[in-house]
Amino acid sequence: MTTNGDEQYERGLEALRQADGGAGQRLLDALADVSPELSHRSVAWSYGDLYVRPELSRRDRELLTLGILTGLGGAEVQLEVHVNGALNAGLTPSEIVEALLQSVVYCGVPRAVNATLVAKKVFAERNLLPVRT
Amino acid sequence: MTTNGDEQYERGLEALRQADGGAGQRLLDALADVSPELSHRSVAWSYGDLYVRPELSRRDRELLTLGILTGLGGAEVQLEVHVNGALNAGLTPSEIVEALLQSVVYCGVPRAVNATLVAKKVFAERNLLPVRT
Amino acid sequence: MTTNGDEQYERGLEALRQADGGAGQRLLDALADVSPELSHRSVAWSYGDLYVRPELSRRDRELLTLGILTGLGGAEVQLEVHVNGALNAGLTPSEIVEALLQSVVYCGVPRAVNATLVAKKVFAERNLLPVRT
Amino acid sequence: MTTNGDEQYERGLEALRQADGGAGQRLLDALADVSPELSHRSVAWSYGDLYVRPELSRRDRELLTLGILTGLGGAEVQLEVHVNGALNAGLTPSEIVEALLQSVVYCGVPRAVNATLVAKKVFAERNLLPVRT
Amino acid sequence: MTTNGDEQYERGLEALRQADGGAGQRLLDALADVSPELSHRSVAWSYGDLYVRPELSRRDRELLTLGILTGLGGAEVQLEVHVNGALNAGLTPSEIVEALLQSVVYCGVPRAVNATLVAKKVFAERNLLPVRT
Amino acid sequence: MTTNGDEQYERGLEALRQADGGAGQRLLDALADVSPELSHRSVAWSYGDLYVRPELSRRDRELLTLGILTGLGGAEVQLEVHVNGALNAGLTPSEIVEALLQSVVYCGVPRAVNATLVAKKVFAERNLLPVRT
Repeated sequence: MTTNGDEQYERGLEALRQADGGAGQRLLDALADVSPELSHRSVAWSYGDLYVRPELSRRDRELLTLGILTGLGGAEVQLEVHVNGALNAGLTPSEIVEALLQSVVYCGVPRAVNATLVAKKVFAERNLLPVRT
Repeated sequence: MTTNGDEQYERGLEALRQADGGAGQRLLDALADVSPELSHRSVAWSYGDLYVRPELSRRDRELLTLGILTGLGGAEVQLEVHVNGALNAGLTPSEIVEALLQSVVYCGVPRAVNATLVAKKVFAERNLLPVRT
Repeated sequence: MTTNGDEQYERGLEALRQADGGAGQRLLDALADVSPELSHRSVAWSYGDLYVRPELSRRDRELLTLGILTGLGGAEVQLEVHVNGALNAGLTPSEIVEALLQSVVYCGVPRAVNATLVAKKVFAERNLLPVRT
Repeated sequence: MTTNGDEQYERGLEALRQADGGAGQRLLDALADVSPELSHRSVAWSYGDLYVRPELSRRDRELLTLGILTGLGGAEVQLEVHVNGALNAGLTPSEIVEALLQSVVYCGVPRAVNATLVAKKVFAERNLLPVRT
Repeated sequence: MTTNGDEQYERGLEALRQADGGAGQRLLDALADVSPELSHRSVAWSYGDLYVRPELSRRDRELLTLGILTGLGGAEVQLEVHVNGALNAGLTPSEIVEALLQSVVYCGVPRAVNATLVAKKVFAERNLLPVRT
Repeated sequence: MTTNGDEQYERGLEALRQADGGAGQRLLDALADVSPELSHRSVAWSYGDLYVRPELSRRDRELLTLGILTGLGGAEVQLEVHVNGALNAGLTPSEIVEALLQSVVYCGVPRAVNATLVAKKVFAERNLLPVRT
């Protein structure tokens, strides 16, 4: 708990670049001329502070984040970043789709469908369609 | 409670086709190459299992679903299906608009407005504008 | 749209008393020494302004409100008022339970269960348990 | 609490026009042929009834509304109206961005980012980018 | 997708009993005299239908469900069931606490704190406090 | 952006103690044996990092936080902390009640009522009832 805030940001930015292959960077760029401070916290607090902790693996964290964002709703922009992050952490398209399927029991069809359509968009960009189950 | 899952799906699909005149089918098509399993549950569990139960009429169910989706928020895709479903179950445009108006007291102006703009889109496609009150 | 605000409140208060048999009044009493203004709007805007409009029946409105509140979540206090209101508008316990069952498809098990446990509490107070389906 | 509903609406409409410089009017126009009643309440109850009360300044009210809408989520259309309203009430772009930054602690990165991107859109339309902090 | 609904329920009930050690059963009991149908679906659709699918491990599913329920909010009753389920699927208290810590970035402090206080309650019942990190 | 994480926490803790007069400390105590890490971030990121920034006054920040938490819903524990914080930052009970009244337009009666009942609880503890408007 003693890391300097700028170190956290730099470390987080590097981790983000490895994690999501571009989608997160585009979001940071969009924030650059309006709220670099929000951009800074969103990187430093997630990838810089929490994701590096050893208590959970990167794969566990990305799976979990898909669940949090789907349950929350209205987080399509972040879901796009984290479907990429999930793929890059080793989750397969089939596992990602299964995770979103499970969410339907807890948060209902609309949020599960919204999240699945974001996954579809990312899969299409990465030539991963159709998903084989 | 003893229906076979595939029977439920087939029965639900038939009911969906009668209910919404195309909007639901387009959503199922969008899910086909990414999550046919989600597509299957969303039909089997709603139109296949619950909507056929005699405790509430189809009109009651569609009115209720408008309320649930408006209160939930972020469910514009499903609202489009169910504004169509509500019209096909015999609710008039004026009744639908009144239902969304009532929601403003409980979930506030933004969700009521979002839902009303979805209804406007469906009404426009079906030549039902302007709504006469 | 020309009713005076105080008339709306008086009319709404009378309607509320007929509608819910006490639960709404207890809520208004709880607000009396902290926000009589909120108490006033919540009565005037719902029962005073909207519920008297002829576009939907009282039964339709109470069914719809159950849906809105269940989809919204975190509205247990209002749900208690409106499960009472629904019973007083002629909805049977079986219909109310069926409405909450339907919500599970759209907003998931947790919100459906929360709402059903509120209904159970009201049914118990009114000696309506067990619900026969 | 004795104002006539139509007076409230007229007063609110005048206040809205001064407050937001067009974004609110466009929303009212979009509702005109589908739900003039919703349009009427959203103006009468906010700008017509509450915003004119002396307990909070216009600047306080617009700051507060930014918080409510960001916490609620899915309220991008209203946020556009109220980022304009906040600027017109004297809040600077830097203060608005700071308010949205603060929200990240309470409602998380996705809602803070969504709101900030709405603010960016309004700032761009009014030649207020980049925001200087 | 061809399982009979009652088989699904029986299979799910057995899985639930193994999974959560009592908390889920208490919830089913609470629903028994008001909505056995909701009780039935919540078991058949989750543990009976989805949790038995091989695409994700039981540990993955329970981790994911913690995320979904925390993001959703207002799901304390289900969280109690699934903190138990997570422990029984092999997640350690430290991993569960870390998962809820991660959620703070995406859904904010209040939902993360609510979920963590539910976990604390379950840990206390099972003599797992204090959590060693 | 260069503060060390522990400095941020210490500074935040001191600020929290001045701000809320005990309610926040009780929450931190409740988290101590289950998630000191969550306790640490919730203090360091809010009072330690953001609240000390000069872009908004303490009064502005507390008013804003009331709005965010009310719009979010399900944040009664944090609202209790921040109704205290708002009073300590110079907002009067009448201003706090007015802020919660305004929220009804945007997030509906149930969330406005829930928040107002939390405020009532805090006002009662501090002998500030009845609120004079």
